[in-house]
Amino acid sequence: MKNVLVVKGHFIFTPTPDAYAVYENSCLVSVDGKIAGIYPSIPEKFKGCPVHDYGNRLVIPGFVDLHLHAAQFLQCGMGMTSKLLDWLGDYTFDLEREFQNRAFAREAYTCFAEKLVACGTLRACIFASSSTAGTQELFEVLKEKGIGAYVGKVNMDRNAPDFIIETTKASLMGTKYLIEKYQDEKRVKPIITPRFAPTSTEELLKGLGALAVKYHLPVQSHLSENLDEILWVRELFKGAENYSDVYFKNNLFGQTKTVMAHGIFLGEAERELVKKMDLMLAHCPDSNLNVRSGIMPVRTYLDMGLKIGLGSDIAGGHKIGLNEAMVRAIQLSKLLNLSNGKLKPLTVSEAFYMGTKSGGSFFGKTGSFEKDFWFDALVLEDDSMIAGRYSLEDRLEKFIYTGDDRNICARYVEGEKL
Amino acid sequence: MKNVLVVKGHFIFTPTPDAYAVYENSCLVSVDGKIAGIYPSIPEKFKGCPVHDYGNRLVIPGFVDLHLHAAQFLQCGMGMTSKLLDWLGDYTFDLEREFQNRAFAREAYTCFAEKLVACGTLRACIFASSSTAGTQELFEVLKEKGIGAYVGKVNMDRNAPDFIIETTKASLMGTKYLIEKYQDEKRVKPIITPRFAPTSTEELLKGLGALAVKYHLPVQSHLSENLDEILWVRELFKGAENYSDVYFKNNLFGQTKTVMAHGIFLGEAERELVKKMDLMLAHCPDSNLNVRSGIMPVRTYLDMGLKIGLGSDIAGGHKIGLNEAMVRAIQLSKLLNLSNGKLKPLTVSEAFYMGTKSGGSFFGKTGSFEKDFWFDALVLEDDSMIAGRYSLEDRLEKFIYTGDDRNICARYVEGEKL
Repeated sequence: MKNVLVVKGHFIFTPTPDAYAVYENSCLVSVDGKIAGIYPSIPEKFKGCPVHDYGNRLVIPGFVDLHLHAAQFLQCGMGMTSKLLDWLGDYTFDLEREFQNRAFAREAYTCFAEKLVACGTLRACIFASSSTAGTQELFEVLKEKGIGAYVGKVNMDRNAPDFIIETTKASLMGTKYLIEKYQDEKRVKPIITPRFAPTSTEELLKGLGALAVKYHLPVQSHLSENLDEILWVRELFKGAENYSDVYFKNNLFGQTKTVMAHGIFLGEAERELVKKMDLMLAHCPDSNLNVRSGIMPVRTYLDMGLKIGLGSDIAGGHKIGLNEAMVRAIQLSKLLNLSNGKLKPLTVSEAFYMGTKSGGSFFGKTGSFEKDFWFDALVLEDDSMIAGRYSLEDRLEKFIYTGDDRNICARYVEGEKL
Repeated sequence: MKNVLVVKGHFIFTPTPDAYAVYENSCLVSVDGKIAGIYPSIPEKFKGCPVHDYGNRLVIPGFVDLHLHAAQFLQCGMGMTSKLLDWLGDYTFDLEREFQNRAFAREAYTCFAEKLVACGTLRACIFASSSTAGTQELFEVLKEKGIGAYVGKVNMDRNAPDFIIETTKASLMGTKYLIEKYQDEKRVKPIITPRFAPTSTEELLKGLGALAVKYHLPVQSHLSENLDEILWVRELFKGAENYSDVYFKNNLFGQTKTVMAHGIFLGEAERELVKKMDLMLAHCPDSNLNVRSGIMPVRTYLDMGLKIGLGSDIAGGHKIGLNEAMVRAIQLSKLLNLSNGKLKPLTVSEAFYMGTKSGGSFFGKTGSFEKDFWFDALVLEDDSMIAGRYSLEDRLEKFIYTGDDRNICARYVEGEKL
């Protein structure tokens, strides 16, 4: 007998960016964790199966965070007067060092994972630290939580303090160790994670690309976030045509499934390469503002057909709830629209799509309630004065703009209630 | 015997915008609600007085919100795809109508006041609705909460739906009724509140200005938020030199203490008038973004010596916690800096100053812990991993960026614990 679950409530999700699909007072059937369909009432053949009845509550896809640093969670919202490269030196590297201590790593990663899941993120692409042992703790903590994640040991072999870089060889060996240990895990899997070009030698990048190809692993890194960073990359990699090319020629740019954070200042050739290699870009609007990088031209990229999801970018971003990234993405798109009326602001459904189905596509079929998608879902609890008065779309918008972990009363991953 | 209270903890506040004053492990003494001083230990003459010991917690001034609409609280975070004038028509006016029902008003205003106080706002300039009876409910609800507030019945006699405007006479009479009923209240007092120029006849404005002068009452309204609105004002008030002049010549622009929300697009002459009349401007950054108005040139105004505080502008703004307005003010100032390097971004202490001492000056001596200021304070509870690791300034910055009502474990107004 298959594992069947019937969930009752109001279902709202975005099969396409331009509008919500809304199923009021309906029954979603999950079979072995995948969605069989949404029905007005329980179909005959599923009668007698377990039912979770959420009444007048909303059920939405779980959030997908395409870019965040677990080892920076404690420093969220600190040092926010610095620009990117200063901030790394003044705040971030010292903290990341501590993750070499397994006990510290377990405690800090537990805080992180609890808040992440509480706030509704059920799939995430996560940077750990350069410590192999510390990263192993993160794998273990996330496995216990039950969410889906790609977790990367952060590779660095130059241009950062001695106490957090490794030799090229040690960085590659630690990565290989974690790959072999976790590659067959069900939900928490390894991802190749050069921190970013400037902290990697060409040899390290080449070795990481080889691992990605050999083990068929996805890749995550940072791309073109800040103008100083871009100049630095140009100086360090004189043979490369541009920032993207540094990754591309080392098999780290779409040769396997790849997500790059930021990509704010991509030139024409780089945009075309992003498109051709089917890359996913992680838009991290709070981080763009906080470390004074710039604003990703989201509408322009969407019009070109680039794939964009959202990232909280903890701790360049300060809010771990992905709904906050949706709001800030909309707000920033409104600002771009104020200076150029042709760039239409993002609608709420577009931002929601980016944070659910679009980002979700990096993990397979998640982020929507279409047939055969994983049932990864959040159940929302809102105030009775709101629930009785407003439409389902308005209630969802209110949750996105003003809600937090207290408004999420249940979470499901692959049909299992967490 | 005077009413003495000793509070122990870490005190952090901004006597000036450029830096925090920090008193670690100290004792603040409040006498009859006013601060006598902050000492390394309890002075001899106060020994034996009641002590509230907060140990390793931070104690900061209460937040001051210079602009928000209590009658819009329920719709926070909805309709955020509309621009200002559409949004008023599609969402706001219908909701405001319901406040003619006293029972509804009491229920909705209670929700509002509970969240406002929970999030740390202890002084606020508040718009109610056009209903006199509904506004009376707001006075009563706020009195029960114990915070300080200026509360305005919203005056409108044209250019809004029939169901929420009044005749000029009724609008003035209702205002006078509330003034006489509440003018001698200790903390919750009336304020003259024309909604904004376009929904007022000249006769109404003249009548309101006369009430302000006669009863020595403060004034609040909206000013120059949106380019369409400015054109509309120009058309409606052909005799006025500019938007500010519409209020000025009716005794509503600094003749008594005045706070104007927004003031985004002030011309040179208007800026000078704002300065000359010693007006307070309420910067509402989330609202500026959400209803796509523009960005207040805060640094430019500060450099001119204009007085600026912060407003959540519920429900053009979606977050009622004033720390969120501090963050967004900083974020927007960083954006202005990206396009013009001469405009220095706001520092965290500047934003904190705007949301405490600067805004507080509208209420007298509050928003700082200097001698003779009211002891209006919040006690912050942070995580043990944070409290043990970071400086007091970092812990405050983290609260501002990531905290919410759950991080506030005590609130004091005029030396009384709420």
